[in-house]
Amino acid sequence: MNIILLSGGSGKRLWPLSNDIRSKQFIRIFKTEDGGYESMVQRVYRQIKTTDPNAAVTIATSKTQVSAIHNQLGEGVGISVEPDRRDTFPAIALATAYLHEVMGVPEDEAVVVCPVDPYVEDDYFQMLQNLADQAAKGEANLVLMGIEPTYPSEKYGYIIPASTAAVSSVETFKEKPDIKTAQDYIAQGALWNGGVFAYKLRYVLDKARELLQFTDYADLFNRYSSLEKISFDYAVVEKEPYIQVMRFGGQWKDLGTWNTLTEAMDEPTIGEAVLNDVCENVNVINELNVPIVCMGLKDVIVSASPEGILVTDREQSSYIKPIVDQIEQQIMFAEKSWGSFRVIDVEEGSLTIKVTLNPGHSMNYHAHQRRDEIWNVISGEGTVIVDGMEQPVRAGDVVTMQAGCRHTVFAVTELKMIEVQLGEEISVHDKQKFDLES
Amino acid sequence: MNIILLSGGSGKRLWPLSNDIRSKQFIRIFKTEDGGYESMVQRVYRQIKTTDPNAAVTIATSKTQVSAIHNQLGEGVGISVEPDRRDTFPAIALATAYLHEVMGVPEDEAVVVCPVDPYVEDDYFQMLQNLADQAAKGEANLVLMGIEPTYPSEKYGYIIPASTAAVSSVETFKEKPDIKTAQDYIAQGALWNGGVFAYKLRYVLDKARELLQFTDYADLFNRYSSLEKISFDYAVVEKEPYIQVMRFGGQWKDLGTWNTLTEAMDEPTIGEAVLNDVCENVNVINELNVPIVCMGLKDVIVSASPEGILVTDREQSSYIKPIVDQIEQQIMFAEKSWGSFRVIDVEEGSLTIKVTLNPGHSMNYHAHQRRDEIWNVISGEGTVIVDGMEQPVRAGDVVTMQAGCRHTVFAVTELKMIEVQLGEEISVHDKQKFDLES
Repeated sequence: MNIILLSGGSGKRLWPLSNDIRSKQFIRIFKTEDGGYESMVQRVYRQIKTTDPNAAVTIATSKTQVSAIHNQLGEGVGISVEPDRRDTFPAIALATAYLHEVMGVPEDEAVVVCPVDPYVEDDYFQMLQNLADQAAKGEANLVLMGIEPTYPSEKYGYIIPASTAAVSSVETFKEKPDIKTAQDYIAQGALWNGGVFAYKLRYVLDKARELLQFTDYADLFNRYSSLEKISFDYAVVEKEPYIQVMRFGGQWKDLGTWNTLTEAMDEPTIGEAVLNDVCENVNVINELNVPIVCMGLKDVIVSASPEGILVTDREQSSYIKPIVDQIEQQIMFAEKSWGSFRVIDVEEGSLTIKVTLNPGHSMNYHAHQRRDEIWNVISGEGTVIVDGMEQPVRAGDVVTMQAGCRHTVFAVTELKMIEVQLGEEISVHDKQKFDLES
Repeated sequence: MNIILLSGGSGKRLWPLSNDIRSKQFIRIFKTEDGGYESMVQRVYRQIKTTDPNAAVTIATSKTQVSAIHNQLGEGVGISVEPDRRDTFPAIALATAYLHEVMGVPEDEAVVVCPVDPYVEDDYFQMLQNLADQAAKGEANLVLMGIEPTYPSEKYGYIIPASTAAVSSVETFKEKPDIKTAQDYIAQGALWNGGVFAYKLRYVLDKARELLQFTDYADLFNRYSSLEKISFDYAVVEKEPYIQVMRFGGQWKDLGTWNTLTEAMDEPTIGEAVLNDVCENVNVINELNVPIVCMGLKDVIVSASPEGILVTDREQSSYIKPIVDQIEQQIMFAEKSWGSFRVIDVEEGSLTIKVTLNPGHSMNYHAHQRRDEIWNVISGEGTVIVDGMEQPVRAGDVVTMQAGCRHTVFAVTELKMIEVQLGEEISVHDKQKFDLES
């Protein structure tokens, strides 16, 4: 099975765990069998590989997420990197071209496209296979998944099928309705449009040739930032006469708010938390290394990360976006392809971060124009390169780097450092990358 | 006026702002005219000095609080240091001896003793003067303040006065009652015993001679740790026949719980906090440098410090002690006589702290047996001494110190450093102090 997972943009609906660079799908919140936690993207990827070990998975995403994806899924996963965000039609066209040209999937094979963040069980992935099989038959150009609604939601578009058969042609599409209209649609047998569909590669490549003057993958990639922003639904789905819908009655949850996300937690708390016995329906997700104590709360969600602390009534949690949009703050932590970093002190004229490099990884060879840096190695072993000079480092070693000096570090074992940055204008943009001469 | 302020022990009733080393009276929570915040001890000290600029204030406290007192009140305040905690009779005896022998107050002068943490207005300090004046007259050996009760509290002992006169003899004392009994006491005209009283120095010095084999201050200080723990009420007050009570009807609040403390706040929030407009009766005290967002909460108090995060219903906040007593954690921040420190990263084998030295101050000249240290100066200017060698330091300088090496730093301007500690057994007890040869 060929799958394109659409890994959507960043957002603050799950602040302080999601932020401008960490999207909700990377939050590790689901308990795994070994007692750890996995994120939505890790959960979905694991489920796909359990259902079909040979599944060829391509993640369509922007370059800002590439580091986090490699951090969470390893280096082996296919990624169709979008130079910037142009909505779903350009993204799906680019990923389809990637699948065909880079991964070598023939034009008449089918591919399934689905979002990276549904909270679903194994039957969903069996249904993806069914969608792909149905698309491969060629009865229709597009085969959509229609999810049987469990309540009259205002959050989804609706598909009105021509019949109640397992596979039916589509009568019409409906935009996100109000509750009353949603009730009417459901009475007519409408299904939710969850943005899941299958097609033969050729179909989307042809659409891209027609609508985007597509010649090949490299061309599309290079012109990507100049493409019009347009959704796949609007550009393709709603205009396609040869279209079918396959109904799905299994579990399908969109964990887009704190309220829905915490409902999917296996235990009420993650991280250090103490709740007194008067607490009722309280969830705590604590990414800090100090305890959270809750007393006498009801229907409350508490979440803490290096970015901040949220304390919210469950119902109110869906109104978070405009509130946290007011908050201006720098990024306090991030997962990178080579490991992670966390800001531990902010002062005028200095910034102190904790850097963790995974074994066998190194950061880019780089320099800063406007700041000096000091590395204090606190654990592990590695090799530092400063202006071309290599030296081994271990816990207790200190490396000082003046502005302009090129540097990197390679982790032999997991390597942790306290990095002190000093300068009047410390900015993430003050970074020049260089090739390492070997 | 001579005043002894009893600065009580540490406790966790106001966790995470109070802890094993920071008592509630040092929490900066009351808005000052210049827009900053002052603690209870700072507020009371300022109020005393406003009422009587010549007041001789002696703070009776254990040595663990000396640094915090100097940090908050400066070096000029008198401190009677208790070698350890022996309850109030030994503490008051020691402070009285200190006042007489060290500060030179004659035996027939009066002194007022009061706790350091009542939340009161200027009329209270006028009343302290009245108490001292009454004690100076010599009509009684002890003159107590009797506070007119505002509700039938179970938290205080009661004084039954012989009459309703402004100054009366005492008929009897009553232990902390239940609510019903408290109502009965109040119907009889009882007053709260707030632990405020005045006497001539000679009276307590004689009691100390009689009960503690007191010879002089140095003797009492040296034997202090072997003295029996006994309260002044039990040892002295309840046995004294020549005793008067002076009634006080002004504001007197004991801010011992989060609920009472937050009621005294001038504004609902301190520190970075955003409350949506559905929040009702919510207080936030945030000592972290990241925002706290509250949505849809009612009657809730949120408090965050480097030690942890508390989210509590107002009423429930009085039950905090057994809950936080379960939590084992290291001290994450402290105010010292020379400045302050804060733990910013904890790892096995390393501890990273941020140190701030006030201008003109230095830490002890000291060494550690089991850890190396690295100082990364991030702002300010100072002088470092390492194994007797002096060197000036400024932002960007790095000083490495092996285990066993003696070191200190003197701040010329405010000096901030990131200190990385490395070793297998990092402990606050691994510290040897040395004299600096000049």
